[in-house]
Amino acid sequence: MMEDTTVYVPTLEDMLAARERIASYVHRTPVLTSRMLDELTGAELFFKCENLQKAGAFKARGATNAVFGLSDEQARKGVATHSSGNHGTCLSYAAGQRGIPCTVVMPRTAPQAKKDAVLGYGGRVVECEPSTSSREAVFAEVVAQSGAEFVHPYNDHRVIAGQGTCSAELIEQIDDLDAVIAPIGGGGMVSGTCLTLSNLAPHVKIYAAEPEQADDAYRSFKAGHIIADDAPETVADGLKVPLKELTWHFVQAHVADILTASEREIVDAMKLIWKRLKIVMEPSSAVPLATILKNPELFAGKRVGVIVTGGNVDLDKLPWN
Amino acid sequence: MMEDTTVYVPTLEDMLAARERIASYVHRTPVLTSRMLDELTGAELFFKCENLQKAGAFKARGATNAVFGLSDEQARKGVATHSSGNHGTCLSYAAGQRGIPCTVVMPRTAPQAKKDAVLGYGGRVVECEPSTSSREAVFAEVVAQSGAEFVHPYNDHRVIAGQGTCSAELIEQIDDLDAVIAPIGGGGMVSGTCLTLSNLAPHVKIYAAEPEQADDAYRSFKAGHIIADDAPETVADGLKVPLKELTWHFVQAHVADILTASEREIVDAMKLIWKRLKIVMEPSSAVPLATILKNPELFAGKRVGVIVTGGNVDLDKLPWN
Repeated sequence: MMEDTTVYVPTLEDMLAARERIASYVHRTPVLTSRMLDELTGAELFFKCENLQKAGAFKARGATNAVFGLSDEQARKGVATHSSGNHGTCLSYAAGQRGIPCTVVMPRTAPQAKKDAVLGYGGRVVECEPSTSSREAVFAEVVAQSGAEFVHPYNDHRVIAGQGTCSAELIEQIDDLDAVIAPIGGGGMVSGTCLTLSNLAPHVKIYAAEPEQADDAYRSFKAGHIIADDAPETVADGLKVPLKELTWHFVQAHVADILTASEREIVDAMKLIWKRLKIVMEPSSAVPLATILKNPELFAGKRVGVIVTGGNVDLDKLPWN
Repeated sequence: MMEDTTVYVPTLEDMLAARERIASYVHRTPVLTSRMLDELTGAELFFKCENLQKAGAFKARGATNAVFGLSDEQARKGVATHSSGNHGTCLSYAAGQRGIPCTVVMPRTAPQAKKDAVLGYGGRVVECEPSTSSREAVFAEVVAQSGAEFVHPYNDHRVIAGQGTCSAELIEQIDDLDAVIAPIGGGGMVSGTCLTLSNLAPHVKIYAAEPEQADDAYRSFKAGHIIADDAPETVADGLKVPLKELTWHFVQAHVADILTASEREIVDAMKLIWKRLKIVMEPSSAVPLATILKNPELFAGKRVGVIVTGGNVDLDKLPWN
């Protein structure tokens, strides 16, 4: 495996190695179905519940793979990332499992609940100002002082190989899928899905679902090169980040289409899933169902895996209240 | 099997027959765990997720057993009940699976969502005035006209045998349980649990959990005879009904203790479960965790099955908002 984590493209073997490496530390998450949602969409939907994953998100997979793939020498110096979302929490979880230090750089303005989530798993939070320049400066200092290994939220071959274990499980749990759909932000889950399915089930179509108000991946896909949005605003706050080289590599090669949904459609789909599947999940995780409801002709009569990416939502600020 | 459903006490054989009878129509529900909740309670908690059951509640088990145990002749005349809660919805679901009529008598003042749930599975709603006398008169008329079989929400051997299949699954899914705890209202789930565990795992202690504000089962248990509350008010609205002869039979014989929790403790426990387990469940289903948190000495160091009874909650009226 090459040392430069930004250009090495992970392979099926990396995904299989990840699966073995992380097996004791992550859940094989259940797949739920709903007769009512099937009737509503005309499709057979299989919801892969990564909201029930350790630390509440699929990102536990990639983070755990990165952490447990480190040499003992590197591990002693710990890991670090900048993320105020699920990746920070999940990296803290994974580091805790290995018993190594984890530092997450976060804007001081990030919600206390996000900081508490990192702290709850034993990680350290270092605050920066809410600007890219401050974040980069503070992060560089953290790495310089500790020698910690940087684990990027998605543009990292170890992370993508880890996320690929989700669809590897899904195709074992559910036979004869015609399609899989996942939300797309930075593209880590979609890239992992592409990695796994293009090798193990190449007939399965891969769709990505994105908020209209943060449709940089959609526009990148149509344009044929990466386009980054400038500070998009969407209720699906896990999906604001742009594609990077590695995830773009997978998206442009293997994704059948990127579908978008409005804020209202996302919230309606989220409520429908809570009501019908009885699960707590994030707005980001509702974008796939929102796009399925909007594009029935693409999915009717098909067996569709739907990745429910995470469940870390503020119960005091539900978007329909 | 005797015809009089109010006095026949169901046996292990009835539960085993129920299990086979309902297997194609109900889910084998998953069991979820949370490291955080284990740390908080000092116990190992195994949440049996009947909120993920068909029609959103364990009552699909008993209702399905009753419906599929009918002779073809009786089945043609259909089933009927009076319930504005999960039993009505679940009986409608079960009848729909067999393709037979189902009538649910409900006060005209019941929430439209409850009526819609029955209608959504193909059942018929007949409204009565919100009084016991009106309900009984209307229900008698429904049965006289249709010849429908009355399926009581809990004081029915077929229903109790069906509910008993839940703990039969649980002890297959989780080894070496020390205790099982379930909420208690009319006592159908607790009775089914007693039926199964007293036969198959008699060393497992059975606890019942009840709201302080509707503690008729607790007071009955202490007094040694059934005491019914007069219109109790609690956020755990599935637990307002009193014990009846059949459920009292099981409760007095096999329950180790009945524990109670305040409204505030119930809502706090509910929110904790939503946050940590990422599942949508009813206030009633949170009463067990509330009592575990309140009585750590009873559960610390123990492996405890916790029955999450249902997930049909109004997302627009969450009790912490």
